[in-house]
Amino acid sequence: MKTHLAPGRVDYDGTQIHSLWAYRTFGVQGDSLVAFQGRCDIPFANMVDLEDVRAKSRIASPLMLHFIAEHFDLDLEKAVLRQRLLAAIVRDELGGEVRRDGDDLFLGPGKLSISIATLTPVSSKIHFGINIERALDVGVETRALGDLRVDATDLAKRVLAQYAAQIDGIHDARTRVRGVP
Amino acid sequence: MKTHLAPGRVDYDGTQIHSLWAYRTFGVQGDSLVAFQGRCDIPFANMVDLEDVRAKSRIASPLMLHFIAEHFDLDLEKAVLRQRLLAAIVRDELGGEVRRDGDDLFLGPGKLSISIATLTPVSSKIHFGINIERALDVGVETRALGDLRVDATDLAKRVLAQYAAQIDGIHDARTRVRGVP
Amino acid sequence: MKTHLAPGRVDYDGTQIHSLWAYRTFGVQGDSLVAFQGRCDIPFANMVDLEDVRAKSRIASPLMLHFIAEHFDLDLEKAVLRQRLLAAIVRDELGGEVRRDGDDLFLGPGKLSISIATLTPVSSKIHFGINIERALDVGVETRALGDLRVDATDLAKRVLAQYAAQIDGIHDARTRVRGVP
Amino acid sequence: MKTHLAPGRVDYDGTQIHSLWAYRTFGVQGDSLVAFQGRCDIPFANMVDLEDVRAKSRIASPLMLHFIAEHFDLDLEKAVLRQRLLAAIVRDELGGEVRRDGDDLFLGPGKLSISIATLTPVSSKIHFGINIERALDVGVETRALGDLRVDATDLAKRVLAQYAAQIDGIHDARTRVRGVP
Amino acid sequence: MKTHLAPGRVDYDGTQIHSLWAYRTFGVQGDSLVAFQGRCDIPFANMVDLEDVRAKSRIASPLMLHFIAEHFDLDLEKAVLRQRLLAAIVRDELGGEVRRDGDDLFLGPGKLSISIATLTPVSSKIHFGINIERALDVGVETRALGDLRVDATDLAKRVLAQYAAQIDGIHDARTRVRGVP
Amino acid sequence: MKTHLAPGRVDYDGTQIHSLWAYRTFGVQGDSLVAFQGRCDIPFANMVDLEDVRAKSRIASPLMLHFIAEHFDLDLEKAVLRQRLLAAIVRDELGGEVRRDGDDLFLGPGKLSISIATLTPVSSKIHFGINIERALDVGVETRALGDLRVDATDLAKRVLAQYAAQIDGIHDARTRVRGVP
Repeated sequence: MKTHLAPGRVDYDGTQIHSLWAYRTFGVQGDSLVAFQGRCDIPFANMVDLEDVRAKSRIASPLMLHFIAEHFDLDLEKAVLRQRLLAAIVRDELGGEVRRDGDDLFLGPGKLSISIATLTPVSSKIHFGINIERALDVGVETRALGDLRVDATDLAKRVLAQYAAQIDGIHDARTRVRGVP
Repeated sequence: MKTHLAPGRVDYDGTQIHSLWAYRTFGVQGDSLVAFQGRCDIPFANMVDLEDVRAKSRIASPLMLHFIAEHFDLDLEKAVLRQRLLAAIVRDELGGEVRRDGDDLFLGPGKLSISIATLTPVSSKIHFGINIERALDVGVETRALGDLRVDATDLAKRVLAQYAAQIDGIHDARTRVRGVP
Repeated sequence: MKTHLAPGRVDYDGTQIHSLWAYRTFGVQGDSLVAFQGRCDIPFANMVDLEDVRAKSRIASPLMLHFIAEHFDLDLEKAVLRQRLLAAIVRDELGGEVRRDGDDLFLGPGKLSISIATLTPVSSKIHFGINIERALDVGVETRALGDLRVDATDLAKRVLAQYAAQIDGIHDARTRVRGVP
Repeated sequence: MKTHLAPGRVDYDGTQIHSLWAYRTFGVQGDSLVAFQGRCDIPFANMVDLEDVRAKSRIASPLMLHFIAEHFDLDLEKAVLRQRLLAAIVRDELGGEVRRDGDDLFLGPGKLSISIATLTPVSSKIHFGINIERALDVGVETRALGDLRVDATDLAKRVLAQYAAQIDGIHDARTRVRGVP
Repeated sequence: MKTHLAPGRVDYDGTQIHSLWAYRTFGVQGDSLVAFQGRCDIPFANMVDLEDVRAKSRIASPLMLHFIAEHFDLDLEKAVLRQRLLAAIVRDELGGEVRRDGDDLFLGPGKLSISIATLTPVSSKIHFGINIERALDVGVETRALGDLRVDATDLAKRVLAQYAAQIDGIHDARTRVRGVP
Repeated sequence: MKTHLAPGRVDYDGTQIHSLWAYRTFGVQGDSLVAFQGRCDIPFANMVDLEDVRAKSRIASPLMLHFIAEHFDLDLEKAVLRQRLLAAIVRDELGGEVRRDGDDLFLGPGKLSISIATLTPVSSKIHFGINIERALDVGVETRALGDLRVDATDLAKRVLAQYAAQIDGIHDARTRVRGVP
């Protein structure tokens, strides 16, 4: 499991969730989690969650901390389970009042994050984005890392390390138990 | 996903993790999470984690709140991912100072819980046990729900409801996304 | 397993077999079987069975009762097994002289139905269409529900209910058996 | 897919559903369907369906036509789908008034057949048994091939041929379709 | 497992690795290995290995013996394992000084072959090409069947027969072992 | 992928192919290949290949170089593919006149090796044994490393390194290709 913190600014437009983006862009090969900061603005044509398409939701934020995970298997249920684990890790790193509901994080009345998990022809992918600044005009109340006085780069480093450690821990756990009747 | 809170006392000896225990014992059929309270004492012959067997660890507690999950697929990695999700749910229901590390919960210097995930010939199973009273003589410092002033029955009900809701949410999430290139 | 009987007329042109059509069109989410009535005319570009493409078969009918099943797994053999089950259910609901041969139904010398099963990037899909009126100019002799004096709407309701019941019965059957040596 | 009609009498006691029975007993290797005639009497210790165990059902018949299928994969849902297909084939070969409900066949008020599908460590197995003579003392009304004036050996040959042909047809169907978006 | 030696010349441009090419082109249905001779020139848009795309490698040869395998499952690791087996078979048929390194064959300092394995929406595919004449201008030193005085058609026949026999042998091996604890 | 060369003598009696043997015996956790030297004598009760059981073959050798591979997945076809790859690697390390036929190695008229692949409840396992000394009284002519003047320890080291490198290469290959239509 490799991790990479991309320097500079990378805007998220929904194509970063395509297969092998980490390898094509950064040379990061294999199961990976990449973090970067940038705007979020996803055109309808790139939306993956058809609930958003049906509701004509706007998915946008002026500045987000983004995570892109890629795992080279083709099991969408497993991808969603890993997405929930990633959300739980971010919650635990933020701590305090932050609450997780499925793949969403909330602070008080406002939404902190967006996320999606899907399949490519060769892998499963997760996008998890956390507002660094509050998003306006998206139809729901939002909160941001600024409200929590959390440094995005510091959070990125801790989440990258925790996710890699927990995925390794899962691999470890499944190679030391015997079956039962 | 069915849930069941077993009345009365059920002691855990490691055989409750065998296949179809919920169906044989309570008539609960299909993917399920069952909660019950009772002693924990696992003979070496019933231990599933060979790390414990190698270390000759004693796994015991005078009184625990136990959860047994069964899912009818044969993917151990997925079982371990669900186990991590269950641990995260219990942590969130306990809140405050409780910390999750993989499948373990801690309060200050003491361990609150034990857990294992494994395969049967027809399903995957999870055991997750939380001390209601501190366990002594197990070689590690422990903490218990008593230290948190949490009622075990109340916690059981909330965890059963949350796990079922989150597993349903995962099913929901994987049936509304399109694939990407 | 959800079922839906679409009111009004929906013509089948081969795009209804794409992923998440039931969700995008009717808001029906998850594993589902949808029934509707309409013309069938599949352009070569939309044909899925390459045997038809190679033979330059015309697949058309002035009026059919259509069923579209979607199951959120990626196993084509399983999709074809479910397709055979659906064909057997339609046969049993029609009863009498109707014969099943694989995924095809026949009445005397004429073909009553067409069917295909395939994969999308996130699910498996089945199309099963039964002539309400005989199809001409398709290179084979055909028969129709009219020849059997069967009401299409009534048949649709019975098949939707039976398929859902039998899929549930399959789920039930796989959660109450133990493994054998 | 191999088929074999075992000569002579073979009584069914529940061990014929264990892995590789066809290979060990008849040298029939690979995916197979074997037919034989004999008594059916399954001790509780050999029962696979825990619903029968819970209900303390007696599973017995003085003379049955038995089918044992083995497929070398480990997907119980697929095994149950094949079991339903086998039941539909037997129904179609018997024709007339015989009705299928899931994996059971009925004639008027009486049950004609019993069936189970389960997993071994290396394969999936199906047992399907049809009364040649009515079973008494089993707690339900039964019917038999004798009531239908069907010859068991002739039926066995037709079912073996049909099941092999239909399994081959399924394999054929999944190797000539393209995917869809 | 079917094999086919295509007569005449077929140039490889990277589209022969698409799904169902053997069926669409030659009517060869099901798991198959097809051999043909022709030029190799793969435009960047058709390249499958992103390492080549990133390195802007040119993949070309004036004349190659090509093999295209298709297996109707969706497991890329298994496809790569079969690709290694195919490379080992070609090595064994060439014998002598030829060395295999992963999926590449070498003779002295020069590369004899190119290969890739990938997934389609309904199958897994392998391309394996062996220089009949040395390739120039491809940035690496090459060798060819001409250097070995091996006849391409004769080699093609032997590899087709060996691969089919070994795939059958693998199927045979997995249907006669019992599981272990 | 871990490798381990066990010091001292370990006799093979068929129990080393059980799950987690490398972890229980040497603390080697995860996917692994372990090599050791010792006698081979497998009682009938421990035989895994039912062809040997049916033929009442004796499987024995006074001294063998043994390899035990464990991979934590449950796909027997994949296990057999890896077994063939291991056989090809041993052949290539021995070089010269040694021939591979499926999972068997031969030198002139004599058999050099024995091998089996099977499933445990949590993993797949391979045993591959090469005669260090010729085996007598086993019903077939045998050859041994002594005939090749190959040092068993040196061969063990080279095979352990090559298998680990090739398994890593397979993982590498499946994480850098895009899918095709």
